[in-house]
Amino acid sequence: MRLVRYTPATGGPVTIGLLRERAVEPVARPAGDGDAELLAIAMSRTEPAAIGDAVGLDAVRLLTPLARPTTIRDFLTFEQHYRNFLQRSRGTDEVPAEWFRTPVFYFTHPNNIFGDGDEIPRPDTDQLDYELEVAAVLGADGRDVTPEQAPDLIAGYTLFNDYSARDIAGPEMSLGLGASKCKDFANVIGPCLATPDELGGTSGRPDTTLSARVNGKPHGGDRLASMHHSFADMIAHASTNSWVRAGDVLGSGTCATGCLLELSSLHGEDAFPWLEPGDVVELEAEGIGTLTTTVGPRPARRS
Amino acid sequence: MRLVRYTPATGGPVTIGLLRERAVEPVARPAGDGDAELLAIAMSRTEPAAIGDAVGLDAVRLLTPLARPTTIRDFLTFEQHYRNFLQRSRGTDEVPAEWFRTPVFYFTHPNNIFGDGDEIPRPDTDQLDYELEVAAVLGADGRDVTPEQAPDLIAGYTLFNDYSARDIAGPEMSLGLGASKCKDFANVIGPCLATPDELGGTSGRPDTTLSARVNGKPHGGDRLASMHHSFADMIAHASTNSWVRAGDVLGSGTCATGCLLELSSLHGEDAFPWLEPGDVVELEAEGIGTLTTTVGPRPARRS
Repeated sequence: MRLVRYTPATGGPVTIGLLRERAVEPVARPAGDGDAELLAIAMSRTEPAAIGDAVGLDAVRLLTPLARPTTIRDFLTFEQHYRNFLQRSRGTDEVPAEWFRTPVFYFTHPNNIFGDGDEIPRPDTDQLDYELEVAAVLGADGRDVTPEQAPDLIAGYTLFNDYSARDIAGPEMSLGLGASKCKDFANVIGPCLATPDELGGTSGRPDTTLSARVNGKPHGGDRLASMHHSFADMIAHASTNSWVRAGDVLGSGTCATGCLLELSSLHGEDAFPWLEPGDVVELEAEGIGTLTTTVGPRPARRS
Repeated sequence: MRLVRYTPATGGPVTIGLLRERAVEPVARPAGDGDAELLAIAMSRTEPAAIGDAVGLDAVRLLTPLARPTTIRDFLTFEQHYRNFLQRSRGTDEVPAEWFRTPVFYFTHPNNIFGDGDEIPRPDTDQLDYELEVAAVLGADGRDVTPEQAPDLIAGYTLFNDYSARDIAGPEMSLGLGASKCKDFANVIGPCLATPDELGGTSGRPDTTLSARVNGKPHGGDRLASMHHSFADMIAHASTNSWVRAGDVLGSGTCATGCLLELSSLHGEDAFPWLEPGDVVELEAEGIGTLTTTVGPRPARRS
């Protein structure tokens, strides 16, 4: 099943629904933001009965599948993406041996979340990029989870666009603490939470096709099965001597050719320029759907 | 005022209290974990009336000032600490110019929180270290906050021990994403939330003495006023084109000589060895108090 949170297009209370071809079927009316209820439905692995008539997508506003992710961890699991990145940043595509052993990740900002149909606030950057990722969303807490146990914690999967400002990243990451302001302005998830059966099973190693478009023009893509480290391995690593919690979001990292940094390195900046105000970025994954956002205007410079 | 959450030593409901010399005075009995109520009292800037008799510290268990930080950002604001770190890791103590311009930070794990009196779960490491820091805790949301507005968002300050596994950090951080498993096993805050007036005013640039002890032996220290970037500057930076939220914790970064990595570089590993099971680590800041934790046993190796 593909679960969404939505309101009427004109505003109103949050409803949880099943995403159909061109409609949503209401299944629950939560008292609050609905995060806990949506995760509980996903974890039940059973499609609930409708509690009302299906509503056309034109008549609703889709919200992010979670209003408040508990945390967001972003990983680096696609080898070819990492090779392309290393080639650009270090002049060699040789992947460190440590990477093959460890599903490395960093924590990113969980409280600046955008969803399908949103305009994202553009930071003061000349190198704005999208990143094409899939994220697992956890529906239960765990600690020292084995890769075999890990799939039981996964409520489902969503698309994840980890917008990045490459010119902010350079100076910031040179100080050795990793990424923060270059990635904390817009974490986009949606359009739905697709339960694991929608992506080829419950093994913690899902597969689907991934693709991106900017203003309708194809912008690279990959298969989710190209991940070197599976979501099950990622959860096991994250939970070693530590808690993972219901509502945690674990991003796959960018797939091969899943961002402008890679595409412009491979094919030139004229063919794949950085994002500008008004650009429409669509990420698509079979089984999940399409996640569309628009780049907002340049911010006023701080005095 | 110095605010604590606590239960009777034998367990029971959470109470919010004022920390006195050797006692706590109850001021509120929240329905839930009390995080929101404690922040609201701090933001009122007014000491509430007691709702019962003071209780001796022996008869209570102090909890972390927040059960669930919204996020934790850790910064790098002490120049001499950074110099000592650079000398050890890069063989030069020259600080990059970018550091002076930018209060750089990273997001760390908000859901593995320990407090005063706790035993922390030791990860599989041979180089376990503590870090002596102070953290600001926010009591209100903000976006594009100026340094002048920022102090109004600060509910108060707490001690922050950012336990770190240096041998896990090396390979992990070589992959370029920063710190994760080397720092996600125990973030320790406490013993109280001290409102800004306890630390010399409400300017967002507090001062106090900072010191650490391991098994009673002095282990370095500094003044909080040595921070190159103030908490006000840190909040302004974090909130640029992004949300900061009530319950966010912003760490100062380690003060000069505030960890074994520095002390052992300066004075030798024999004088300042890595932490072992049973070691008692105390952080102290005038105006906040003492935050004591004990290092847990080595974990069983994963099969």
